[in-house]
Amino acid sequence: VCSSDLRDRLRQGIFSVKNLMKTLAEAFHHTLKDIFYAENALTKAIPKMAEAAPKGDIRTAFEDHLKETKEQIKLLKQVFKTIDEPAEGEKCDAIEGLIKEAEGIIEEASGKALGACLIGAAQAVEHYEIARYGTLRQWAKELKNDEAHDLLSQILDMEKAANAKLTGIAVGMA
Amino acid sequence: VCSSDLRDRLRQGIFSVKNLMKTLAEAFHHTLKDIFYAENALTKAIPKMAEAAPKGDIRTAFEDHLKETKEQIKLLKQVFKTIDEPAEGEKCDAIEGLIKEAEGIIEEASGKALGACLIGAAQAVEHYEIARYGTLRQWAKELKNDEAHDLLSQILDMEKAANAKLTGIAVGMA
Repeated sequence: VCSSDLRDRLRQGIFSVKNLMKTLAEAFHHTLKDIFYAENALTKAIPKMAEAAPKGDIRTAFEDHLKETKEQIKLLKQVFKTIDEPAEGEKCDAIEGLIKEAEGIIEEASGKALGACLIGAAQAVEHYEIARYGTLRQWAKELKNDEAHDLLSQILDMEKAANAKLTGIAVGMA
Repeated sequence: VCSSDLRDRLRQGIFSVKNLMKTLAEAFHHTLKDIFYAENALTKAIPKMAEAAPKGDIRTAFEDHLKETKEQIKLLKQVFKTIDEPAEGEKCDAIEGLIKEAEGIIEEASGKALGACLIGAAQAVEHYEIARYGTLRQWAKELKNDEAHDLLSQILDMEKAANAKLTGIAVGMA
């Protein structure tokens, strides 16, 4: 890159700026954007998983979770309001990888393996969300943001219930 | 692609074959290769996270978990033996995404945000592993592979303990 080109790119902000987050409040905002991106990505991915799933319990679980995900997006928008920030997502590599893995299953599995692997992939997604909401809720507490703490607790409980439901289906398939 | 070229590529197995997994035993083998890849990838990623982490509890937690991860790889090799298959990994998109996210934090965070986000990223990885080992252990039970069930239970308990330790550090930072 020649130096005038470098100046142009710096002016346009093309280079990534390192060390963007310093405070816990900044970490909270960043991670909130990550999970907002993730939930929105899931509203596109879950219908594909539902369509590929065997009819019955598994497909119903995906369909139900799509409704819950849309509900969670509404709750997340309220969390953004508590910190006076617009509800917007930021590309989250983790959920991209988890969704890619789930899509791989649709390509690679059939028969009994398909249902079992789809539940497994959905549980991996649930656990990712449980980890993120657990972290965000703890940070909300430290930041003394009670409203965000309550909203995030509601979502965390929904994710834990969804995961327990999937475990029930998985064990019931035995 | 001209047809002779197509024949060559088919002969060399370059094209991906769809619907590779049909039975639960095949799903078990495939998912075992996924997590084996993931644990091996983590032995390369954890030292970077430890190096970037603030000295003290967080860095020590990463250093300890690196030792545990190496121990888990040995246990996984024993699981492969129970199904008479070579211990080998298969690229796992989910862990790639989770590691990419953790590496992003090292670039993007400093100060209090760095420690908090690194713990958060590590907990996301732990939860991914808890989901995968929970699924594999359930499948081992269904497949009546008692030895694999015991080995996977051991690893699952280690991951749950590691996650609880990280929660303790996160809460203690308040």
